[in-house]
Amino acid sequence: MQHTEMLAQLVGGAGFVAALDQSGGSTPAALKALGVGEDMYSNEEEMFALMHAMRVRVLKAPSMNGRRVLGVILFERTMDAQIEAVPVPRFLWQRGIISFVKIDQGLEKDKGGVQLMKPIPGLDSLLSRARSRDVLGTKMRSVINVASHRGIGDVVRQQFELANHILDQRLVPIIEPEVNIASATRDECEKILLGELSNALDGQSYGRRVVLKLTPPVTDGLYAPLIAHPNCARVLALSGGLSQEAACAALARNRGMIASFSRALLQDLRVQMDDAEFNETLGRAVERIYLASTIKQLG
Amino acid sequence: MQHTEMLAQLVGGAGFVAALDQSGGSTPAALKALGVGEDMYSNEEEMFALMHAMRVRVLKAPSMNGRRVLGVILFERTMDAQIEAVPVPRFLWQRGIISFVKIDQGLEKDKGGVQLMKPIPGLDSLLSRARSRDVLGTKMRSVINVASHRGIGDVVRQQFELANHILDQRLVPIIEPEVNIASATRDECEKILLGELSNALDGQSYGRRVVLKLTPPVTDGLYAPLIAHPNCARVLALSGGLSQEAACAALARNRGMIASFSRALLQDLRVQMDDAEFNETLGRAVERIYLASTIKQLG
Repeated sequence: MQHTEMLAQLVGGAGFVAALDQSGGSTPAALKALGVGEDMYSNEEEMFALMHAMRVRVLKAPSMNGRRVLGVILFERTMDAQIEAVPVPRFLWQRGIISFVKIDQGLEKDKGGVQLMKPIPGLDSLLSRARSRDVLGTKMRSVINVASHRGIGDVVRQQFELANHILDQRLVPIIEPEVNIASATRDECEKILLGELSNALDGQSYGRRVVLKLTPPVTDGLYAPLIAHPNCARVLALSGGLSQEAACAALARNRGMIASFSRALLQDLRVQMDDAEFNETLGRAVERIYLASTIKQLG
Repeated sequence: MQHTEMLAQLVGGAGFVAALDQSGGSTPAALKALGVGEDMYSNEEEMFALMHAMRVRVLKAPSMNGRRVLGVILFERTMDAQIEAVPVPRFLWQRGIISFVKIDQGLEKDKGGVQLMKPIPGLDSLLSRARSRDVLGTKMRSVINVASHRGIGDVVRQQFELANHILDQRLVPIIEPEVNIASATRDECEKILLGELSNALDGQSYGRRVVLKLTPPVTDGLYAPLIAHPNCARVLALSGGLSQEAACAALARNRGMIASFSRALLQDLRVQMDDAEFNETLGRAVERIYLASTIKQLG
C-alpha cells in the first residue's frame, strides 16, 4: 500500500521534486554557492560532511513536507544516513515526501555531441539497498550538446536500457537526458529528443512507466505528447543553471511539467544564516517553485 | 496534434472539469435553482431554450478558459449548437477548454441496490458526431445505493463494456459510477467499488485509458490506487448534491482528484443577474473550485 500511495503522489500530486543530489565534482562549487569556501575544509571527507550537514538542514526545514514537495532526489550517502535516528527516506516519508536516489556516476566526455553516462559499478547492490530503504525510484542524467540524431538516439537508448533494468528491480526510474541550455541548436535538439523519447515510450510494455526530467523546452508545450503518453508517469523540469526566477518562468510556460530544481531551489541559502533566516529563505523558494509547478503562477 | 494536446491537458493540466450536462428530468429543478420558475416556460422546447441560454451565458463568461477549466461536459444539444457562429466544442477549444459529451439516457430503476444505465439508442451516431466536432470524450453515469458486491460488479461491468466501445471510436470515456452520498453503507460501497474498478483497470489492455468520476470518498485518499493506475488518465470528483463549500472541502482532502462539479459550480448564479454580477459570481466559484482541485486550498 505504501508503494501505491507513493506512486499516486508522484503521478497525481500537486507539488514538485527537490533535487538534493549534487555530488562528486560539483560539490566544491555547490558548497561555494552556499557560502562555504574551500578554506573551510581540508579534505574530501570534511567537504562531504559539510555538504551532508547542509542537506540535513534543508531536509529538516518545516517547508519540506509532502504538501509542497512531492519527492526528493537524494545523493547515495544521504540515502544511507539517518536524521533523528531514522533512516533519511523513512524520515522523509513520515513527512509525506517520496525519495529517489541518484545512481549515475557522472558523464563520459562529449562524443558526437552528447555525453553518455559512465558505467555504474555496484548498481545492483545500490538498487537493492534503495528498495530496502523505502526509496521509490532512481535518477540518472546524460547531456545533449548538439542536435545529432545519432547522438541523441544513443543517449535515449542508454537511458531506457538502464531504466528497464531498474523497473525489473521494482523501482521507478527518472530519466534525465538534459539538453544543454547553452546549446546553439537547442530547439532542434529538443525536437529530436521528443521524437526519440516518444518512440522509446511506445516501445515500453504495459505498466512499465518512467518519469522524464527535461530542460524546459524553447518551444512552449513541446513535450505535451510525452505528458499524454500512457508510459510516462510524470514530466519534471530541470533548472539547468537558470536562476530561480528564470527557471520558474520557463516552467510556468509549460503546462503539465513540475519542477525538479537543485541550484534554483537552494540559490539564496547560506551556511551562515541562523535557522530562522535559513528556513524562511527556503520556505519562500519552496512556495515560489510550488506555485510555478502547479497553478503556473509566478511569485 | 490537437488530440494529443487535449489529452496532455486532461492528464497533466492544473484545473478542473465543469459539468454542464444536466438534462431531461433534472432540467426543471436545475432551472428553478437558477431562479427560473415553472411559470416562466410553457412547454419543453421553451424550457430547453432557457436552459441552453443559461449554459451559453456560462460558457461565454471570461472565467471559463483553459487556465482554470480544463474541460466541460456538454449536453448533446449544446454540443450541436453554436456560439458566435462557431460550433460549441470548437469555441471552447479556442479558449483552451476540452469538450466531453454526456451520452447516457438516464438510469434504470434500482435493482439489487444499484441503478444501471438505460440502453442508449443511436449511440454510434452520437459518437461519430462527437468525434467530427472536436469533442475529446464522453461521460456516462450510473448510481450505487447499497454495498452489494453483485450490484457494484454489474455497474462497473456495464460501464467498462461501453467504455471499450467508446475507446474503439477513438474517444476518451469518463466513467461515473456515483456512490449515493446518502447511502447508509457509503464507506463499504466505496471500498467494494475500489476493488471492482482496480480489477477492471487491470483488465484494460495497454493504452486504453479511461477517466473516472467518483464521489469524494469517506476515507480520505481511498482512491490512490486508481490515481496511480497506468490505465487511468485522471480521477474526477463529483459534487453529488453537496454545496460548493462542502464539495470543495471533501475534494481538498483527496489529493490527485480534481473537481467535475455541476450544481456546486452554478449554485450562486441566477438568471436575473446582470452580466457583471453573473460573471463575477461564476468567477469566484471557478477560482474556489480551481484552488480546491489543484493546491487543495479552501477559499
